[in-house]
Amino acid sequence: MNIETTIEEMARAARKAARQMAHCASSRKNEVLRIISLLLAKRAEDIKAENRRDLNLAQERGLSAAMIDRLTLDDAVLESMITGLQEVAILEDPVGTRTESRLLPNGLEVSRERISLGVIGMIYESRPNVTVDAAALCLKAGNAVILRGGSEALYSNQALTAIIAEALSRCGLPPEAAQLVPVRDRNAVTALLKQEDHIDLIIPRGGEGLIRFVVANSTIPVLKHYKGVCHVYVDQGADLSMAEAICFNAKVQRPGVCNAMETLLVHRNEAAAFLPRLARCMEEAGVELRGCPQTLAILTDRTAARETDWPAEYLDLILAVKVVQDIQEAMDHIARYGSSHTEAIVTSDYDRARRFVREVDSSVVMVNASTRFNDGGQLGLGAEIGISTSKLHAFGPMGLQELTTTKFVVLGNGQART
Amino acid sequence: MNIETTIEEMARAARKAARQMAHCASSRKNEVLRIISLLLAKRAEDIKAENRRDLNLAQERGLSAAMIDRLTLDDAVLESMITGLQEVAILEDPVGTRTESRLLPNGLEVSRERISLGVIGMIYESRPNVTVDAAALCLKAGNAVILRGGSEALYSNQALTAIIAEALSRCGLPPEAAQLVPVRDRNAVTALLKQEDHIDLIIPRGGEGLIRFVVANSTIPVLKHYKGVCHVYVDQGADLSMAEAICFNAKVQRPGVCNAMETLLVHRNEAAAFLPRLARCMEEAGVELRGCPQTLAILTDRTAARETDWPAEYLDLILAVKVVQDIQEAMDHIARYGSSHTEAIVTSDYDRARRFVREVDSSVVMVNASTRFNDGGQLGLGAEIGISTSKLHAFGPMGLQELTTTKFVVLGNGQART
Repeated sequence: MNIETTIEEMARAARKAARQMAHCASSRKNEVLRIISLLLAKRAEDIKAENRRDLNLAQERGLSAAMIDRLTLDDAVLESMITGLQEVAILEDPVGTRTESRLLPNGLEVSRERISLGVIGMIYESRPNVTVDAAALCLKAGNAVILRGGSEALYSNQALTAIIAEALSRCGLPPEAAQLVPVRDRNAVTALLKQEDHIDLIIPRGGEGLIRFVVANSTIPVLKHYKGVCHVYVDQGADLSMAEAICFNAKVQRPGVCNAMETLLVHRNEAAAFLPRLARCMEEAGVELRGCPQTLAILTDRTAARETDWPAEYLDLILAVKVVQDIQEAMDHIARYGSSHTEAIVTSDYDRARRFVREVDSSVVMVNASTRFNDGGQLGLGAEIGISTSKLHAFGPMGLQELTTTKFVVLGNGQART
Repeated sequence: MNIETTIEEMARAARKAARQMAHCASSRKNEVLRIISLLLAKRAEDIKAENRRDLNLAQERGLSAAMIDRLTLDDAVLESMITGLQEVAILEDPVGTRTESRLLPNGLEVSRERISLGVIGMIYESRPNVTVDAAALCLKAGNAVILRGGSEALYSNQALTAIIAEALSRCGLPPEAAQLVPVRDRNAVTALLKQEDHIDLIIPRGGEGLIRFVVANSTIPVLKHYKGVCHVYVDQGADLSMAEAICFNAKVQRPGVCNAMETLLVHRNEAAAFLPRLARCMEEAGVELRGCPQTLAILTDRTAARETDWPAEYLDLILAVKVVQDIQEAMDHIARYGSSHTEAIVTSDYDRARRFVREVDSSVVMVNASTRFNDGGQLGLGAEIGISTSKLHAFGPMGLQELTTTKFVVLGNGQART
């Protein structure tokens, strides 16, 4: 059977399974998650054996140490998957809640009911733990999911998906509610992106190349972010100790992730006092600074920032630094070079705090806090399936609710339209 | 200047205007709408003169009477545009409201703030009143809009857009917040659909051909419905007088619109009693019935429904009729042939009413009411900009709120992530 047919049959089976998942009771969905976590613990050795097959192939192919690290399923990663399942199980089920109820003058009762989306296609790169994390969220929200993990993690993902399918079956639910694309062939992705009749949403997670490929080839709606070029603006009169702590955290705590700071904007009146102390702590942590001319007048002997530095997502211990005239120039810079991901202001001024919050057009806008808090767990949504920087349907971290939608329910007693 | 450059410059100007619209006070946006309605009244003769230029061209080209009817701007249409503006002006402004506030254990205050989407591209066919209706909704929700109306309505649309631009300017807002694509060239549409960096959402309104063209060519998210194949299911034990009134209204009141019934499903135990009385009233109104074999056993001498009738959107006085075994067969038929638009059950049974509501996967699901109520105005949302049958972002009638999104606002006092 060719790959297009395989994928279409999977998608059709997922659609059928989704109809059953859509009105499955929360208790049963939670039971599925509980059984998955039991089986993960019980079959840890089998999973790690399958993972070693992937790791052996990866080593033969000479994959980078970072890739191999992300691919590895050790006890700590398994433990975090189990904890993640427990966290999703205790989240409130959004499906079936009614909101915005109205009783109209003609006696119609109108409300919106939260329903599952249907079938979700997850396309992701190496980390096999995404298989379990993403499936748990999709299933809890009453959806079916088709998983396409990194080809280098195929054996690991097969072992994990077999456990999920078994848990579904044991609970009387269709195992087709969580299916893994069983081949390494990249044409499978292209075929998946054309199943508009059977798949409701595609979520790609990975590098910008993967995401651009998905957007260009999908006829299905896609929720994604290309990159996170996050800014911190240190305002005139800011508490400079707080500014230093926030900037250090935003840059250094985990530089390789999308919510790390990439560009620092400093008000000209604070630059002389703030930049030397910032440089001291950043450079101690190994951060390379690349400055605008005004920055270099204060921090001499550093690299000059070029035009390509302003839109750069370094994902590394590099920071672009620009001195600005005022909040307006800071916001103009963000509007021009930002990625609508996360922006923070450090300020003591009430009006400018309000203005920054109102006018900055990013999925998360912060006052006096580190950009690293743009994360579903950190913001109290529970686990997240990704972060969206496009504004349709979801903008910011996507939790359970973003894996649902609403339909209108209209209850009448014979109303006809006049 | 070629058309691609023109469109890109329009989109860029719209993006800039959108930044200003995004945090414009409600009172000023309402003042814009008020001035538009004043100018529409004051310049009625000029508008009708421009409309006559379109009508003359349409007659020369031999457009159908129906097309010419839709194109005509007479006093009644102008009056309805003015009423529409007043209705949008009194709607509550969704922008700036905060929801889902949480105070986290670490002291961060997290909330979601409703914000405008940005730039919306409206692509529609002949009716020039859409120009004003759509612009009013987009502007009230704090967006900029690029309008691409039917090429046969260009003079009318230019007259209307000039008024909108004048109203914006008079209120100190950028006239680029509402721009009309100034050429008939269809390449303008293709160019518009590629402005991913400057346009956030495309809403096409028109025939299925237009909408499929837009979906196939857009790299921007699209909210749309292809068609409305709406069903009424008359359940066992239903009040047959009520069923007759609902079916008659759903089919006959306005057969050419997307929320009209196209297929009737009748429980087998009611068919013998219900179908003859239904046929009487439907056929008096000129409705042609096309039945399944069991229908034809009761209503002899009618046309047999073919496989192509079940997914058909007639938009005409034709009704497909099928006798079903039970609610399960009715719901299976809807899942297979429906368009996720509007489905209704006529029933007296509590459990089956609940089951239909829960299991039918359409944007509006109704009990004992006519499908014709799937309309933003009728359901209490105020004016609508269209109906979505895809589940992302909006599912069902789209009002002001669907022209907005939410961002996260995080207020702290120095929090860093550990």
